[in-house]
Amino acid sequence: MINTFPPLADVQNMPDNRQIPLRKVGIKNIRYPITVLDKAKGTQQTVASVNMYVNLPHQFKGTHMSRFVEILNEYRREINVKTFAKILTEMKNRLDSQEAHLEVDFPYFIEKQAPVTKTLGLMEYGCGLHGTMTDQFDMMLVVRVPITTVCPCSKEISDYGAHNQRGEVRAWVRFDRFLWLEDVITEVEKASSSEVYSVLKRPDEKFVTERAYERPMFVEDVVRTVCQGLKALSGVTWFAVEAENFESIHNHSAYACTTQCLNEKAVQTQF
Amino acid sequence: MINTFPPLADVQNMPDNRQIPLRKVGIKNIRYPITVLDKAKGTQQTVASVNMYVNLPHQFKGTHMSRFVEILNEYRREINVKTFAKILTEMKNRLDSQEAHLEVDFPYFIEKQAPVTKTLGLMEYGCGLHGTMTDQFDMMLVVRVPITTVCPCSKEISDYGAHNQRGEVRAWVRFDRFLWLEDVITEVEKASSSEVYSVLKRPDEKFVTERAYERPMFVEDVVRTVCQGLKALSGVTWFAVEAENFESIHNHSAYACTTQCLNEKAVQTQF
Amino acid sequence: MINTFPPLADVQNMPDNRQIPLRKVGIKNIRYPITVLDKAKGTQQTVASVNMYVNLPHQFKGTHMSRFVEILNEYRREINVKTFAKILTEMKNRLDSQEAHLEVDFPYFIEKQAPVTKTLGLMEYGCGLHGTMTDQFDMMLVVRVPITTVCPCSKEISDYGAHNQRGEVRAWVRFDRFLWLEDVITEVEKASSSEVYSVLKRPDEKFVTERAYERPMFVEDVVRTVCQGLKALSGVTWFAVEAENFESIHNHSAYACTTQCLNEKAVQTQF
Amino acid sequence: MINTFPPLADVQNMPDNRQIPLRKVGIKNIRYPITVLDKAKGTQQTVASVNMYVNLPHQFKGTHMSRFVEILNEYRREINVKTFAKILTEMKNRLDSQEAHLEVDFPYFIEKQAPVTKTLGLMEYGCGLHGTMTDQFDMMLVVRVPITTVCPCSKEISDYGAHNQRGEVRAWVRFDRFLWLEDVITEVEKASSSEVYSVLKRPDEKFVTERAYERPMFVEDVVRTVCQGLKALSGVTWFAVEAENFESIHNHSAYACTTQCLNEKAVQTQF
Repeated sequence: MINTFPPLADVQNMPDNRQIPLRKVGIKNIRYPITVLDKAKGTQQTVASVNMYVNLPHQFKGTHMSRFVEILNEYRREINVKTFAKILTEMKNRLDSQEAHLEVDFPYFIEKQAPVTKTLGLMEYGCGLHGTMTDQFDMMLVVRVPITTVCPCSKEISDYGAHNQRGEVRAWVRFDRFLWLEDVITEVEKASSSEVYSVLKRPDEKFVTERAYERPMFVEDVVRTVCQGLKALSGVTWFAVEAENFESIHNHSAYACTTQCLNEKAVQTQF
Repeated sequence: MINTFPPLADVQNMPDNRQIPLRKVGIKNIRYPITVLDKAKGTQQTVASVNMYVNLPHQFKGTHMSRFVEILNEYRREINVKTFAKILTEMKNRLDSQEAHLEVDFPYFIEKQAPVTKTLGLMEYGCGLHGTMTDQFDMMLVVRVPITTVCPCSKEISDYGAHNQRGEVRAWVRFDRFLWLEDVITEVEKASSSEVYSVLKRPDEKFVTERAYERPMFVEDVVRTVCQGLKALSGVTWFAVEAENFESIHNHSAYACTTQCLNEKAVQTQF
Repeated sequence: MINTFPPLADVQNMPDNRQIPLRKVGIKNIRYPITVLDKAKGTQQTVASVNMYVNLPHQFKGTHMSRFVEILNEYRREINVKTFAKILTEMKNRLDSQEAHLEVDFPYFIEKQAPVTKTLGLMEYGCGLHGTMTDQFDMMLVVRVPITTVCPCSKEISDYGAHNQRGEVRAWVRFDRFLWLEDVITEVEKASSSEVYSVLKRPDEKFVTERAYERPMFVEDVVRTVCQGLKALSGVTWFAVEAENFESIHNHSAYACTTQCLNEKAVQTQF
Repeated sequence: MINTFPPLADVQNMPDNRQIPLRKVGIKNIRYPITVLDKAKGTQQTVASVNMYVNLPHQFKGTHMSRFVEILNEYRREINVKTFAKILTEMKNRLDSQEAHLEVDFPYFIEKQAPVTKTLGLMEYGCGLHGTMTDQFDMMLVVRVPITTVCPCSKEISDYGAHNQRGEVRAWVRFDRFLWLEDVITEVEKASSSEVYSVLKRPDEKFVTERAYERPMFVEDVVRTVCQGLKALSGVTWFAVEAENFESIHNHSAYACTTQCLNEKAVQTQF
């Protein structure tokens, strides 16, 4: 389209003489429908909450916010591990900057069978792809996985029963070869008293209750077991993990976190 | 599948002798991918937050929660105005109840052109379908529409400028013939100082700024203008409207609401 | 103070000829420090989120929003069951309206002993006072109480253990004589597998775990037991109750609710 | 009190042989009433959301969560810049750890006069005190300040009007001498098109509207101006600042952030 609009002042492009560069400027919390890769089905359509930023050198007054939305609109049908570097490079180029940051968070659904009756249902996981392009490309997968935890102390000291609750594990994972969100989620679910399901019939509920009681875990245990699982997952170079229990006997959470670097050189990867 | 699992006690089915019927029992805040009708494209895939309830007569101890998820899983690919009664009837039948309630809320995206440059972007609207099946079928569309409002008082008393802000209009609409979410959204957007966009280039920003300044509106004006628009919309029999301004000069909101019944007989409709 | 400011147009006071009265106009979500009554200590200082509305007759363009904040500022040190009617009347008078609505929601803390060691801690409850003044005065107490629930079905069908979780009960209570928030909260806490605490030492944790296992309750049971408790509470004329379990084996909630009127005449009370 | 309870297994104290130390374990999102310092009135009572963590060496299975609540209960009446190191040291000692972390976030109210009529109202600011004790003591003040921003581009290119909106500035500040929250808030409010108020009469609204129109600012300008203000504030050694505009013409935010270290040695201070 030939731009035939009358010229308007470009205020953002005006000089700024305060000598203060900004680390990030851009748009935050825009919701957009996107298509991501799905290990079982090829692709999955979902709705993302997106942040897009670039750096702003000290001599410029502002950035051009509308260009972020234009880029998002162009690439929304293929936002995934393989295209992330390309989108970030496009941001750097179109915004004429040295650094670009992209954070895409979305609900992701996996079809799951109940453990005994094999009844099918879809489970929601909170997932994300976060990346930065400077001279190098840095990227991480993010997952938020609901779990069940039975308290080992409560089980040990009580004559019967044991308090348990819904918990949530959040993991951020850097990697140096292609990695499925599904594989990270699987490692996290293994590190729980029991995984959770969208649909459970009574034989499933019996199974899940007994399995959880047999495997009591503190948030501390959950984090450590996730660490062991992620270290064993091919391609992982760095991770951070946190677990939060929405305690059933309190009105607050129990919390634990840690981080581990498996390959110092690979943290900023040219994936 | 032939159920070959050993018999387990059906605790929910046990009698309760407290003589207290419950109005609603069921599941709340389950997230599920769904497919809804789209006026421009036929269908749209999105992610819903769903509540499903039935009544519970006084003589039963509990309901069977897993059946709600099974029904949702079966119908998720066609949740819309035309199928809502069928899903609610299925809930009544499978849960053996006299009343069923279904609330499905989801982000909905409409492609929108910037007003001058015609740049394309997708705008998000919070939408919902809420319904109840007793002997009769009752249903409403729900929309949550972001708008811009310029304060008429501020414009009138100030020598230049006028405070304005993002606002949000929420409308609940009953109807007696098929109604598009898009048509309700259009009526709401007309009732603003300016509609909002996901992408605006500078000629668009000039247009939007000036248009909004020319049409200052209080939240009170917004609600009244939405009322006029919905009364003129074919098929609408009842509505409730509220407008909230996230005031730019305060840290709280300005608020207005009202409700109107256009057809007493049609409120509970056999649509 | 003598108002010596130059006259400015009163846009809100201008006529509107659309013939559309508004049910509520006012301010929403203003946060304010307030002082409420405390059964144990006389008074308690907390921070409220407040909504204040009046009706707007069809012939007026708008209301005067700043007056709501002025009234809140005057009365913030004594917002309670005894002063609510006075504040609402002040709103009606100062805003020159026929109806006034006031909703004040706040965290409320009660000192609580752990059940065995008697260790002291403060428990937070979400409380509220909601009222309307027309020709009559109508008011309700609102409480939001965290609880523990052990699943009766899971306990019955499992060889050991039982899934349990944090739940939340919300109750809205009308009354015809003075009623303490504390007394409503006590009735709700009794209707649980176990109440929850801010601090529990190991002997307490053993006690709470075993007590909860001995008293399994569905959300349906919780709501019915709250009903029985509130019916027996002196002064209560009407209530609505809902219970939500943040299921430990699912990523969604189980839900139940009902409502009961104990005294048709007393619902709108001249308290 | 002499502990006369029968001995119960101390599961948390059991060994763990996985060789994985945890960076933080503790409690999260506990709400508690606290008393903080107030520049105008001496002290202010408010309600905090609190996180308390310690590190967990690899050889221990878990931490003792109830001790955190006991410490909070003891110190809640004096949580401020002067007592923070003492509370953190108490956490280290009572939890037998090498590191302790404390995050206390709360609404904070300041009495403010409307700019022309001098009408009094209370403005809410989101404030926090965050600290860590290792061998050294590190602490920061956190403020979240609502502001108004008028868009410079919109003003420049439009024949009349200019879009403006509510924004929010968040700042994290390290310091090497006592610093009032009030003084940080004042610097942030200066860096806006206009500060916001809880109550404004019409002469104030005229003043605020015109002042804002005279001082248009992008989020980029806001962040840079806050930088200049904090650099000039006595005692500040490091800060991070972010500004977010809840755009009135979009349904997403404009965002900018940066960070600056003024005194490399003072960042971890023995204040």
